[in-house]
Amino acid sequence: MRTSVAIIGCGPAGLLLAHLLHCEGIDCVVLEARSRDYVEARIRAGVLEQTTVDLLRRVDVDRRLDAEGLVHHGFSILVDGEPLRIDLADLVGRTITIYGQTELTRDLIEAALARGIPILFEANAVALHDIASRAPAVTCRAGDEDVRIDCDFIAGCDGFHGASRSAFPADQLRTFEKVYPFGWLGILADVPPCKEEVIYASHERGFALASMRSKTRSRYYIQVPADEPLANWPDERLWDELEIRLGPRAGSRISRGPALEKSVAPLRSFVAEPMRHGRLFLAGDAAHVVPPTGAKGLNLAASDVAFLADAFARHYRRDDDAALESYAARALARVWKAVRFSWWLTGLTHRFPGTASIDRRIQLAELDYIRSSRAAQMSLAENYAGLPL
Amino acid sequence: MRTSVAIIGCGPAGLLLAHLLHCEGIDCVVLEARSRDYVEARIRAGVLEQTTVDLLRRVDVDRRLDAEGLVHHGFSILVDGEPLRIDLADLVGRTITIYGQTELTRDLIEAALARGIPILFEANAVALHDIASRAPAVTCRAGDEDVRIDCDFIAGCDGFHGASRSAFPADQLRTFEKVYPFGWLGILADVPPCKEEVIYASHERGFALASMRSKTRSRYYIQVPADEPLANWPDERLWDELEIRLGPRAGSRISRGPALEKSVAPLRSFVAEPMRHGRLFLAGDAAHVVPPTGAKGLNLAASDVAFLADAFARHYRRDDDAALESYAARALARVWKAVRFSWWLTGLTHRFPGTASIDRRIQLAELDYIRSSRAAQMSLAENYAGLPL
Repeated sequence: MRTSVAIIGCGPAGLLLAHLLHCEGIDCVVLEARSRDYVEARIRAGVLEQTTVDLLRRVDVDRRLDAEGLVHHGFSILVDGEPLRIDLADLVGRTITIYGQTELTRDLIEAALARGIPILFEANAVALHDIASRAPAVTCRAGDEDVRIDCDFIAGCDGFHGASRSAFPADQLRTFEKVYPFGWLGILADVPPCKEEVIYASHERGFALASMRSKTRSRYYIQVPADEPLANWPDERLWDELEIRLGPRAGSRISRGPALEKSVAPLRSFVAEPMRHGRLFLAGDAAHVVPPTGAKGLNLAASDVAFLADAFARHYRRDDDAALESYAARALARVWKAVRFSWWLTGLTHRFPGTASIDRRIQLAELDYIRSSRAAQMSLAENYAGLPL
Repeated sequence: MRTSVAIIGCGPAGLLLAHLLHCEGIDCVVLEARSRDYVEARIRAGVLEQTTVDLLRRVDVDRRLDAEGLVHHGFSILVDGEPLRIDLADLVGRTITIYGQTELTRDLIEAALARGIPILFEANAVALHDIASRAPAVTCRAGDEDVRIDCDFIAGCDGFHGASRSAFPADQLRTFEKVYPFGWLGILADVPPCKEEVIYASHERGFALASMRSKTRSRYYIQVPADEPLANWPDERLWDELEIRLGPRAGSRISRGPALEKSVAPLRSFVAEPMRHGRLFLAGDAAHVVPPTGAKGLNLAASDVAFLADAFARHYRRDDDAALESYAARALARVWKAVRFSWWLTGLTHRFPGTASIDRRIQLAELDYIRSSRAAQMSLAENYAGLPL
């Protein structure tokens, strides 16, 4: 098999890239180790920046997003029960859209198949070949067949644990990492959200987040120790704790329901540099991971592939490789700012075990300052709504 | 001796308070453990917020400040040699004034004596009595005499090591502290500054600061290990290091000269709460210390005594004690924001030994973000120029 761009990974990064290339008339093949059912069932992010929504409009995969996505004009930070609303629309003239990554993935897969973009699900033993040459290839085993895809470029969109980043020569990759001393215990349930907008709660007992995927599906999280056994948190205990941390106003409005999903996730900041080696380009979680606090993971994947699709278009249409050469630097400049923002918002809202009491007071002083300052709110808002591409 | 307010400490906090009370027709006595010569020779801060300048105008001690103070419209942060100018005037419509604390202290003492405000220099063995009663007193030994000052209130303006804070019952004082893992090695010299405006340098080898006290007197600092022996830094080595950290543009313009003063100072954040017990009110360094990075120490002392003078005026003029009751909360709200800002600016610009490489990259990402964002620059500027009273 031969294509222009072999895309490894059928998450939002790989799928959005495939659509962007398709719009430019560049052919591609998407390989995915898991089954379609598995990919479509994964529970992940749910907050889209305006930038990401604009990209979905550009590739014309916005019908269901428009019908079902919830446009939010702001969100709140609860400081020991006292709300501080960040009015994104008023502060920076932008909004965010609540739409589950699960739904987005389904839409993108359905549209890809309708457009004839080939996706190979359950592609096992994915291997990258000759990435430093002008004729790279990807091999895998799909069903009973050994498949070889010869291509001009490979896009590694296969996430933090994928094969793409491992294909870099060890001496050509520099990694930066920070593991936070806590995790998030999350619960997804088909109950109405306790409030129309997302709430970040900075509470003495630890951070909590009240989010949603739709008007009837809620997503809640609480900060727990990194190694916390899930068994410690039967549903009722988790709902009780959410009520406490979300305070009397929001907590009392929580609707309880059976967990569709419940899990503990670690919080990590990770960046691999550069995002390109030869003809292999990384995008999304394959190159960087942020703690979920800033809702930046999915949105960074989208901005990465926007830069990458633009670079491929210049290569194929104008024989201009400057954007391919500068892809890593361009993407990383935005990535690092989001890494900084996600780290900052995590530090602002979580309790850090073992830190001195002055650190909590500095957190509270910063929240008090943000409450008092339009400039500080604008800075927070422009990062949350998404920095420009 | 009897007075309305006994002020302990003849630094800027105590002196400015004395003048503010004098303007309100409230009598006071200032006690100072050191000699006038010693107090007038102390080398300290040199950046006045607009708020502080306004207070000096209010007490009419601004003649020499107006003649010799340098009004600065901005300052720069050098990131590995690349300047990022923070245009205070453009961003927040305010300026800062360069005027040495040494000069300010001289002006305030001279004006106090001219106005008949009594100052007892070399007042030893200062002790506070009956601070929780309605009839407190201060005793000391001045020359050969035992002095007792009966008063309505005591203002503790005697700095971090003074007697006032120690007079709080131990169970009535909560302290918060953070000691930074480095110090500042400073040099004062009668040479023209390398640039008209203050420069903060974030350099791979550590932080450096190029400041000044006048057009002919420069003040430079470099970050050094906290326990660094001064003997390791003969003048020439320090000038060489400053040239490197301030980069080719600014460093090459450094004029070298003999050190008028050279010392290593630790960096500390410290807050004592509350700032009042009974009839004793703390102000300035007696209650809180910040690292010098944000140039906030002297300015916080000024805002504290502005709040305190206002509270005393309401007490004596209108028999209204509400402002005295709320003094600690009002002062501390501003203090904690300045503690937060000083901590943040220190974290943004210094190298922290033992931290991971991702932390330096997050610093650089934040500096890159500030460069790209007017909102972030406004937030920095409003803190640097001074939050409103």
